[in-house]
Amino acid sequence: MKGLKIFTTNSGIKYKNRDDLLLIIFENFASVAGVFTKNTMCAAPVTWCKKILKKGIAKALIVNAGNANAYTGKIGFDSIEKKVSFLSLKINCKKNEIFISSTGVIGEDLKTDLIIKSIDSKISIIENEQYNASEDDFIKASGAILTTDTTQKFIKKTCFIGKDEVTIYAFAKGAGMIAPNMATMLAYFFTDAKIDSQILQLILKEAVDNSFNMITVDSDQSTNDTVLFFSTNKVGKNITDINDKQIIEFKKIVKEMAIYLAKRIVVDGEGAKKTIEIQIINYKNEIQAKKVAFSIANSPLVKTAIAGADPNWGRIIMAIGKTEYKFSQEKIQIWFGDFLVAKNGRKSENYIENNVHNYLKDNENVIIRVDLGINKNNPNPIIVWTSDLNEEYIKINKDYRS
Amino acid sequence: MKGLKIFTTNSGIKYKNRDDLLLIIFENFASVAGVFTKNTMCAAPVTWCKKILKKGIAKALIVNAGNANAYTGKIGFDSIEKKVSFLSLKINCKKNEIFISSTGVIGEDLKTDLIIKSIDSKISIIENEQYNASEDDFIKASGAILTTDTTQKFIKKTCFIGKDEVTIYAFAKGAGMIAPNMATMLAYFFTDAKIDSQILQLILKEAVDNSFNMITVDSDQSTNDTVLFFSTNKVGKNITDINDKQIIEFKKIVKEMAIYLAKRIVVDGEGAKKTIEIQIINYKNEIQAKKVAFSIANSPLVKTAIAGADPNWGRIIMAIGKTEYKFSQEKIQIWFGDFLVAKNGRKSENYIENNVHNYLKDNENVIIRVDLGINKNNPNPIIVWTSDLNEEYIKINKDYRS
Repeated sequence: MKGLKIFTTNSGIKYKNRDDLLLIIFENFASVAGVFTKNTMCAAPVTWCKKILKKGIAKALIVNAGNANAYTGKIGFDSIEKKVSFLSLKINCKKNEIFISSTGVIGEDLKTDLIIKSIDSKISIIENEQYNASEDDFIKASGAILTTDTTQKFIKKTCFIGKDEVTIYAFAKGAGMIAPNMATMLAYFFTDAKIDSQILQLILKEAVDNSFNMITVDSDQSTNDTVLFFSTNKVGKNITDINDKQIIEFKKIVKEMAIYLAKRIVVDGEGAKKTIEIQIINYKNEIQAKKVAFSIANSPLVKTAIAGADPNWGRIIMAIGKTEYKFSQEKIQIWFGDFLVAKNGRKSENYIENNVHNYLKDNENVIIRVDLGINKNNPNPIIVWTSDLNEEYIKINKDYRS
Repeated sequence: MKGLKIFTTNSGIKYKNRDDLLLIIFENFASVAGVFTKNTMCAAPVTWCKKILKKGIAKALIVNAGNANAYTGKIGFDSIEKKVSFLSLKINCKKNEIFISSTGVIGEDLKTDLIIKSIDSKISIIENEQYNASEDDFIKASGAILTTDTTQKFIKKTCFIGKDEVTIYAFAKGAGMIAPNMATMLAYFFTDAKIDSQILQLILKEAVDNSFNMITVDSDQSTNDTVLFFSTNKVGKNITDINDKQIIEFKKIVKEMAIYLAKRIVVDGEGAKKTIEIQIINYKNEIQAKKVAFSIANSPLVKTAIAGADPNWGRIIMAIGKTEYKFSQEKIQIWFGDFLVAKNGRKSENYIENNVHNYLKDNENVIIRVDLGINKNNPNPIIVWTSDLNEEYIKINKDYRS
């Protein structure tokens, strides 16, 4: 992709034998859009990005893995100031054109000097490189931002805007602390399409609401979640209208890419062996459907039952019932895959436990479908994705830092 | 205690070699108060008890363990009808004077005939017994209502109301699906004090709000939670005023007993090795304090960190921040036991990780204290109790039914 170059290295702040620092520099100023965690204890880099996003212009992006620079007080903000001061002088831009993300442990001071030293030692190499990032560069970038992830999460797509073929790259990280409104997840989208930052913001928001905001691993929500969308503006005519018919396909693809990455995060849920897709239909309204879906998706009892291939649908009933809504028990229907398990306020007449047990045992992607029986005008499911909960999650989180 | 007799047996519906059916019959009609689950998918016996509680009179109590009779449709209500029809004829009372609880798996039909057969075969023995239950009878009763519990939860206290010494017995069950507003927990209180059922209700509500409603094991909330308080009215003058100074001590003791049983449930949290007490001080109001406390107490990342004796206080910060409230990061202070770990928006200057690690490792009762720094007029902590989360919880819940 033209208009940017990508640089990764090992900074020495935490990990050994792998890259943990990502630096991206844009040739011209990129348009930029962003969505961030709603956790009020948000980290210094999130506060920084929110502040500079208003300008809508990016010259560089720095991401480090291994330390979240969260709840680090003034020292955390000083760290940002040092990095942007240094880099803005080196690449000749304003400080508020440099976006920063951090991911890792909370409450420990970031070794800022090591990050600056890493950038400094490689900046001359960067200077001589072309502003033309390859697919390999993006894949390397997707590796440098990981923490407890077990796999890289990367995707590339192309599509047409009018007669111009444009490219979109995206990558993400995330495995634990995943919940609505993101949570220790970072995701970055890049396109060469010429799109206004306000329009980019609308496209990103719509995509995030249907993907990263619809996943949960453990209901915990991080202090550092960040999704950024950059456009190098190299290809096509400038798009300034969100309803422009030429970007229908583009919008659809961005949403699909976001869903792909979101599901990859769930699959990589700490210790997860299965993906669970919760579908809610015939709900009163979307807010209700989401609350019910997340109540099921966050229930440790539901998640452990799936881990054990136990068709304990009573726990789904329990999770529906613990939301603040009133339901008619007789109107609710529950399916595990194609198996109707509950109907008319009790176990389905056709329910054969062993069949459902086998369905759960044999499938890595389990679908739980709940018909709330309230409004038949809502037959299209609201979907939330989560993972099963097993011993591995506990093992990983008992000694995350050791 | 005079005025009631207690009978336990093995009904054959689920467990082998242990009692799983409890029957209590009152000599005269007992006053009764009750508090129930807020889960809208509540089980048939909960619906039944709620309905008959209005009358405030009890002649008998039947509790079975091993099957919740929840989400069983008309068959579930028929089961209640059969039991109360049978027993009301045998002991000569009205059907709506017989309270019923069930605990166990959801969605399976209860083998009502076995329960009735058990009651029938022993009822002649009961007829010949005195209405004078011994401490051993109450202890046996506390054993017959258990499911995945590993220990019985029983307590006895006496106190004076005026010049009359009264006795209070209480027992409870509960281990998983424990969350605010109770959750697969049953608790029963008995006193011989002569107290009006409306007053009993107020005393019970106050006690439950400060005990069973302040514990959480896994944030899941059961369909069957029930707390009942019976008075045989054998001792003293009738108490008809909640503000009567003669019952100050009685109210205090009931609350203490409820807190004792609630903490016993947490200690017995499925697989739990540690009790975690979350204290919130200097909060804006009680609602805020409770939400923050439960956000910490329900966080799998916090609970696994404690399981691993990892002083990862950043996860506390995360859990505070994921509530809907705004906080000044600089004003918050966090203690693990006596160790101040966070202050002024960052790690405390005196923080020595190994000391806090040892505190967590060496203590079965871990105290996490959070000063929200909002209102110094709220120095008395709002307290929530939970347990750590470790591999045992997963093991127990992966194959609960097998």
